Amino acid sequence: MSYTETDKRAINTIRLLAIDAITRSNSGHAGAPMGLAPLAHILFTRITNFNPREPKWINRDRFVLSNGHACMLQYALLHLSGYDVSMEDLKRFRSLDSKTPGHPEPHATPGVEVTTGPLGQGFANAIGLAVAEKHLAAEFNQPGFDIIDNHVYCIFGDGCAMEGVASEAASAAGHLRLNNLIAFYDNNKITIDGSTSCAFTEDVAKRFQAYGWHTEVIEDADHDLQEIEAAIRRAHKVTDKPCLISLKTTIGFGFKRQGTGGVHSGPLAVDDIKALKITAGFDPEQTFVVPEDVEELYQKRAQEGIQKHKQWDDLLAQYSQKHTSAGSDLYRRIAGLLPEGLQKVLPTYSSIDKAIATRQTSGNVLNALQAVLPELLGGSADLTPSNNTRWPSAIDFQPPSIHLGDGNFGGRYIHYGVREHAMAAMMNGVAAYGTLIPTGGTFFNFTSYASGAIRLSALSRVRVIYIATHDSIGLGEDGPTHQPVETLAHFRAVPNLMVWRPADGNETSAAYYLAITSMETPSMMVLSRQNLPQLGNSTVEKAMRGGYVAADVEDGKARITLVSTGSEFCLCIDAALILRNEHGIQARVVSLPCWDVFDRQDKEYRMGVLPDGIPCLSVEVLSTYGWERYSHEQFGLNRFGASGAYKDVYKKFEFIPEGVVKRALATVEYYKDWPPRSPVSRAFQQWNET
Amino acid sequence: MSYTETDKRAINTIRLLAIDAITRSNSGHAGAPMGLAPLAHILFTRITNFNPREPKWINRDRFVLSNGHACMLQYALLHLSGYDVSMEDLKRFRSLDSKTPGHPEPHATPGVEVTTGPLGQGFANAIGLAVAEKHLAAEFNQPGFDIIDNHVYCIFGDGCAMEGVASEAASAAGHLRLNNLIAFYDNNKITIDGSTSCAFTEDVAKRFQAYGWHTEVIEDADHDLQEIEAAIRRAHKVTDKPCLISLKTTIGFGFKRQGTGGVHSGPLAVDDIKALKITAGFDPEQTFVVPEDVEELYQKRAQEGIQKHKQWDDLLAQYSQKHTSAGSDLYRRIAGLLPEGLQKVLPTYSSIDKAIATRQTSGNVLNALQAVLPELLGGSADLTPSNNTRWPSAIDFQPPSIHLGDGNFGGRYIHYGVREHAMAAMMNGVAAYGTLIPTGGTFFNFTSYASGAIRLSALSRVRVIYIATHDSIGLGEDGPTHQPVETLAHFRAVPNLMVWRPADGNETSAAYYLAITSMETPSMMVLSRQNLPQLGNSTVEKAMRGGYVAADVEDGKARITLVSTGSEFCLCIDAALILRNEHGIQARVVSLPCWDVFDRQDKEYRMGVLPDGIPCLSVEVLSTYGWERYSHEQFGLNRFGASGAYKDVYKKFEFIPEGVVKRALATVEYYKDWPPRSPVSRAFQQWNET
Repeated sequence: MSYTETDKRAINTIRLLAIDAITRSNSGHAGAPMGLAPLAHILFTRITNFNPREPKWINRDRFVLSNGHACMLQYALLHLSGYDVSMEDLKRFRSLDSKTPGHPEPHATPGVEVTTGPLGQGFANAIGLAVAEKHLAAEFNQPGFDIIDNHVYCIFGDGCAMEGVASEAASAAGHLRLNNLIAFYDNNKITIDGSTSCAFTEDVAKRFQAYGWHTEVIEDADHDLQEIEAAIRRAHKVTDKPCLISLKTTIGFGFKRQGTGGVHSGPLAVDDIKALKITAGFDPEQTFVVPEDVEELYQKRAQEGIQKHKQWDDLLAQYSQKHTSAGSDLYRRIAGLLPEGLQKVLPTYSSIDKAIATRQTSGNVLNALQAVLPELLGGSADLTPSNNTRWPSAIDFQPPSIHLGDGNFGGRYIHYGVREHAMAAMMNGVAAYGTLIPTGGTFFNFTSYASGAIRLSALSRVRVIYIATHDSIGLGEDGPTHQPVETLAHFRAVPNLMVWRPADGNETSAAYYLAITSMETPSMMVLSRQNLPQLGNSTVEKAMRGGYVAADVEDGKARITLVSTGSEFCLCIDAALILRNEHGIQARVVSLPCWDVFDRQDKEYRMGVLPDGIPCLSVEVLSTYGWERYSHEQFGLNRFGASGAYKDVYKKFEFIPEGVVKRALATVEYYKDWPPRSPVSRAFQQWNET
Repeated sequence: MSYTETDKRAINTIRLLAIDAITRSNSGHAGAPMGLAPLAHILFTRITNFNPREPKWINRDRFVLSNGHACMLQYALLHLSGYDVSMEDLKRFRSLDSKTPGHPEPHATPGVEVTTGPLGQGFANAIGLAVAEKHLAAEFNQPGFDIIDNHVYCIFGDGCAMEGVASEAASAAGHLRLNNLIAFYDNNKITIDGSTSCAFTEDVAKRFQAYGWHTEVIEDADHDLQEIEAAIRRAHKVTDKPCLISLKTTIGFGFKRQGTGGVHSGPLAVDDIKALKITAGFDPEQTFVVPEDVEELYQKRAQEGIQKHKQWDDLLAQYSQKHTSAGSDLYRRIAGLLPEGLQKVLPTYSSIDKAIATRQTSGNVLNALQAVLPELLGGSADLTPSNNTRWPSAIDFQPPSIHLGDGNFGGRYIHYGVREHAMAAMMNGVAAYGTLIPTGGTFFNFTSYASGAIRLSALSRVRVIYIATHDSIGLGEDGPTHQPVETLAHFRAVPNLMVWRPADGNETSAAYYLAITSMETPSMMVLSRQNLPQLGNSTVEKAMRGGYVAADVEDGKARITLVSTGSEFCLCIDAALILRNEHGIQARVVSLPCWDVFDRQDKEYRMGVLPDGIPCLSVEVLSTYGWERYSHEQFGLNRFGASGAYKDVYKKFEFIPEGVVKRALATVEYYKDWPPRSPVSRAFQQWNET
């Protein structure tokens, strides 16, 4: 079907909506929307299937704008396509609490799939969306029932192309042969520093070929609509590779300074905008205009999408009659419900159970959960045997065409490779797809590599679970390059992220239960390499409050509270014994595995755990940074660790019962005449609403 | 020159030293050293120039083992080559406080250039080392005086090849045409999860070609010593590209399970070792053996290096007679000295100066410093105009062969591209080279992308300066994807990293002065996008203590201390006025731009700034996490930000004088009957020695 004057007008409508919104807010990036309007118009009017009235339809095509600063492009298309994004919303671009924030956020705007803007993230999210689709298709589709068969379309720019997270994800996508993915490279040769010739002169298409991608190049993507569409149709026919379509576009197309760094962002000249409107056949005095024929064209496409969704609903109903169990499972997962009785399968432990590392108790919970939670999609960044992330019966997620063991797309275990950042960003994409709960492992220290994506898990409110083993100097010989120090502080400070450092098996089970049942919050499990005793003092229920009194003493007798997490908890139990037996000092012991969850308990409960008048000493073998929130004195590690057998390293830094006792005595002495308030008693509420 | 039985014996000696050390410590990775011993032997006996007695000789060749877990390979070579790494040191492999830690660390081991182990870092460090060499050669070499002409050799494995940081750095190296760099890819097809076929099936050589590298493939690097050497010699002749030599090696070469995941790490079988020793012609009952001819071969090579260094010393002496100014500058920089009178060039401000953003005061200091500090090497990750990192007279660091404007290798400004992680890792390499001080800019929020490398700046004790602008919700419209919240907590918790958030120009000057003069500590400048007033209360000298009283009140009258940093400092000054005028409450105001520096002041000083008995309220528009160390109550942002004009966003979260006043009143009320101790008064010293 050829392109008409209406199509051209539509492309200019998109451009002018972007310009008008950016001019009104006096902020934003006009350059990329100008160059990308032709592609975006083709996608939304001829390629992607979606229902603007039900933006969460599971089998919709996914559209990701990885160069999120170009978001006025996306907002204009959502408006035209009939999503709940009004002209008023466009006029409020980049203003407080609008539906059109400075970069795309799914919880702000219907039709936005993932949070983009931090460069490279959206691209890697798209790989995750494609993984989810492949997996669900393999899990659910049956002859005659292609329940899941959507595509993922992603636009990315030079910035994304340079970011390591995108490189990692592109390599993974090539390995996984994700032919349901088409990525468009906006090859406009301009970044903030000017021409890409100053820093980025590689051959991008050849690089993607090396990853195993099919590639196409569009020489004139400003004008050649037919060829753009033809390339997409060719890409649809590729059976075993993701596709890169590289488009030579002109940044700021239509402006006087088109094709230069001057139009990437920043203010637009009034006369330039006027000239552009006149050339495009628009009234230069009017703003926010959608010509009638353009509106009709987009409405027609929206109706087609609504129709397709309806047909799909019918197909799913038939499917579900024929494949009852799978059908009801899919309905449940689409509705965001969990199977009944999850809590019952959680492993529990008592003090007679043997000492094992929390990375092992984590493996135990995962194995128990996967049996009843088909939506659990496991994985690791090449540390599978160390992270204990792969349950014994797991089948690998692999493209069936490479015949690797039992691996197929129905497999629920992903080998992400040594690609922590891409793993996290892909997990965000998998979770955003819906009906799946991704888990992914690495060493705790290397979650830092992924922090750009992990903060977006929290900001995007997706339920992903990071499994971070080897959580401290307790990993021993690998030494300070692998021993986290600042890492707990780093992630505890991220809003809407549950960071757990369980002390034993019961606390580990509690951590996973809350992680699975918290629909809009990611979690991080910080786990020991070394064995830890199962404590008589813990239960799953107690741990689910984030913090609890594990060993109390008679009212009024306590001289100190020892508070700790993870591997140092048993150290505190031992120290409390010594304090009582050798020094006649009664010590309470508190376990605080998840600060975020503890903070959400009512004040009475928290004051009961950390009462007024008793000095509190925290014990944790990482940076003490932040512990002043829950303790008056801190015993920790405010330096880098050391390489050696873990017991030697612990001893070097006095993380032995005697080291705790020494500091507890100093604390008791110091506070005896000036008893402190509870650290959780405060003058005003210090947490803003999230 | 052909290879003899002695060479073969030497290669087996390296392998067996690795095996013996790993067996003795019962920890370590034997797989890679077995496969890489032939290459390493060739490098250290025929290729690299070094002086084992003076490992810091500036023109030595640099050797980087990016797959740092294979470090017994490097330790064995350092021992054989005559560095101060004794057989006893090898026997103490991976034991506490030894010279042979679990991964290579330059401050632990003579001859180790950079800290490696976190995968991908060493590779990117090597690019930085090559950049430094190119720059110094361009700066100092003169006809007849090739003062600087070393090469950089780097070995990396599959893990490094998968990491994004290495991909970014490889792309940058290709752009920069660093023909002084040869990287060896240990293509052994094995990672921790098993065969690379499970996750990594791309064509690595083709990818590097796409980046603009010259590539060579060695089909049998277990045996074909001649071909390895020939490939290196060919690489030396390439004039305009970095070189990748891909070596097909056998992991765990010689073991029964060679070529499988089973030999990557973990315990070695006793009979397997015995068999290996017998096959190699060694006594199976002996350990830590160096045959005499092997020792001689390595000693001879060491003598050649010592000789070369001597000749170089003579050359430099002649150079310095002919080019006196350049010569004395180079001598100064090699000695690690700074020019005299640095402090005099620092810009100072008074309250009549106009309000400008600290990203601009930062630009002012940089411009002043660069004029007297030729070792300053600037740059940005594609945010040059936003970061204000490029001084007006700067010339770009670019390969002269691409004829880009005035750019040449003598240029002191690097366009790193949108590659934050590689930038930081390359800066670590530049600093490790010596005689240079790298600075690099990005948005504060995207320093997270680089955190894997930034923690290594601190651990490696290198003087690098991160310039992190757009430091909070104060950046406004770009919204929560770009607004840091947890980021200050994250980096403040890193040991040996000075994190500055200056409130005005004087504090910015102090920050840079301490950054430049702290030889073993990296710094991070956290800077505002929005304009801030120049404060009458600040001076460079006061700020150099990390924290100081900016507005005091009469003794005994103060009811509250307001403590803050950066853009919230002037808010506190305004709030203090309102408190006095409208509520009759006297408030002290404290500025705390660098916690790390403040913590190093004596206790008396710190107690003077934050005294006993006066409640203290901190005000900072990021996570309050960690502020309990310096305040009793905290006003901050414990959620993600919002997109909108920055004044609207500040107002939304009550970051206006009235918002501070409200919380100050609540604080005064709360503590009136239970006056608190100073937050810096503690029962015991909580900082371990670093």
